[in-house]
Amino acid sequence: MAQPAEKLTAGVDLGGTKIQTVVLRAEEVVGSARLETPRSGAADVIATIVDSVKASIASAGARTADLGAVGVGFPGTIDFAAGSVGNSPNVHGFETEAVELGPAVAKALGGVEVRIDNDVRVAILGEWKRGAGRPYQDLLGVFVGTGVGGGLVLGNELREGRGAAGEIGHTVVKDAGRRCGCGKRGCLEAYAGRARMEVMARRWHYDKGRPTELFRIMRRRNRDRVTSGTIADALDQGDRMTIKLVDRAVWALGLALANAQNLLDMEAIIVGGGLGDRLGPPFVRRVAEAAMPHLHVPERPPRFLPTELGDLSGAVGAAVLVGG
Amino acid sequence: MAQPAEKLTAGVDLGGTKIQTVVLRAEEVVGSARLETPRSGAADVIATIVDSVKASIASAGARTADLGAVGVGFPGTIDFAAGSVGNSPNVHGFETEAVELGPAVAKALGGVEVRIDNDVRVAILGEWKRGAGRPYQDLLGVFVGTGVGGGLVLGNELREGRGAAGEIGHTVVKDAGRRCGCGKRGCLEAYAGRARMEVMARRWHYDKGRPTELFRIMRRRNRDRVTSGTIADALDQGDRMTIKLVDRAVWALGLALANAQNLLDMEAIIVGGGLGDRLGPPFVRRVAEAAMPHLHVPERPPRFLPTELGDLSGAVGAAVLVGG
Repeated sequence: MAQPAEKLTAGVDLGGTKIQTVVLRAEEVVGSARLETPRSGAADVIATIVDSVKASIASAGARTADLGAVGVGFPGTIDFAAGSVGNSPNVHGFETEAVELGPAVAKALGGVEVRIDNDVRVAILGEWKRGAGRPYQDLLGVFVGTGVGGGLVLGNELREGRGAAGEIGHTVVKDAGRRCGCGKRGCLEAYAGRARMEVMARRWHYDKGRPTELFRIMRRRNRDRVTSGTIADALDQGDRMTIKLVDRAVWALGLALANAQNLLDMEAIIVGGGLGDRLGPPFVRRVAEAAMPHLHVPERPPRFLPTELGDLSGAVGAAVLVGG
Repeated sequence: MAQPAEKLTAGVDLGGTKIQTVVLRAEEVVGSARLETPRSGAADVIATIVDSVKASIASAGARTADLGAVGVGFPGTIDFAAGSVGNSPNVHGFETEAVELGPAVAKALGGVEVRIDNDVRVAILGEWKRGAGRPYQDLLGVFVGTGVGGGLVLGNELREGRGAAGEIGHTVVKDAGRRCGCGKRGCLEAYAGRARMEVMARRWHYDKGRPTELFRIMRRRNRDRVTSGTIADALDQGDRMTIKLVDRAVWALGLALANAQNLLDMEAIIVGGGLGDRLGPPFVRRVAEAAMPHLHVPERPPRFLPTELGDLSGAVGAAVLVGG
């Protein structure tokens, strides 16, 4: 998979709100770009991916002809044979039918190699190979963002299972508990995912009249959704509803991660994602403390670590896919 | 690890109530013995292990001199370097301090090789190599008996972690739920382990006066503990308390196994152990049905299977340890 030394590799992290791209020479990040994800269909999303790769190459002072390969982290299902993708509720134009993302990007960039993998799996790949996970051969990465994704490295291999391994976000922390976006009840994601936290906050505030500064802070930030920054600001201001929401997220993460640890006895658990990175090491410490009472071997807990690459985990991991 | 073809291998499953031993020639079980576990200290337990091996060899029409190696499944912690064992609350004489079980058994049997591993890990080894798990490279074995043990085969390897992998019995199915024997609350074992089911039944019956036939059936069977047979008989008679206890066990198993599946995306889950085997395929089907609503990919569930070796899983797996 390694590229010739003079060739660049690009890694693209395609998200519902942004497209984060990095360009690597050997293993060094030499350029990057961050563009908004269009909400106007698949063709525009593909064009923006291509623009972000070109912009990253330009920021590295290089030329598009120097590009050897592109890796893409995609938030949905992937048909590896066809290079097509779909089932991505958060990316406009990719919600249902298969889109030939791989061939389209390859063609627009002069026929370079393109590999696509799941966004969460590339993020754990990034942290494992280039970030906080480097010392370990057994680790769980949990990415707390809009949803809660997870990826497992076991015995020095990224676990695939039958294609769906790592779904810690949809382990059930409370039977018949909070409704999750997936339709089930009581999933970790229903408590720790930003989207479901916002749903709960809107219900408590607008339907039940409970006070919160969360939406005022959101509007002040010129947002129409509760972002990780909104939550962090509301926490800093001591907003009680936000404190409660984050308490529940910490509780749910502690329980789910302890259960994963009891089953797998891993060396480390990395907590990242938009919200995890934004709230940072104090949040990770709280999650570790919440896990402790549930650990079967509390005298030998895993190391709970924040990410090292932060919001570049996915893009760097996508580049690792193609030898970057 | 393989023995010369003419040599026999023995596998010993040391339990709190019985010592089950098998003798294998090549991969065939040719002899077996089942003795009660003494309650009079470590020396007597070791002597009975040796007796059970000799009795198994005799039942195979062979001589002790034909024995090449012995594997032992031990319900506690193992110091692999020293061959010593301990931390086994259910085996008299092995509760706390280290006992040099391996060297003692080896010496008493003329210096044969002895290997010891965790009882649950050898049981999953037995089912994986010689039982229901043969077709699979990714599976979870859950053994529902006095407690609830588990073992994982991932990527065609028995997972060890840092020595404590597979503890599905101590994953938490209900935060702040039923007290478990381990001291935590809400563990799977607190709901599905026979010992905790008995604790609940005694409390409901003797402290709270709720009716049940369970203890009458127990006494009729000349037991002072609620065995798997007692539970099975009470279920057959429609005893409502027992039905409730088993319903909760099924619920807890469904939730814990679904969570393990969501995380690991395995091919198969084998449900065995004293109670699992006694209640058999209908119980396994109920557990599978209870897991379904919690599966993240319900259209591709794992296969839920009963054991093939039944109460010989552990002894056969112990023999597999030494190439049997």
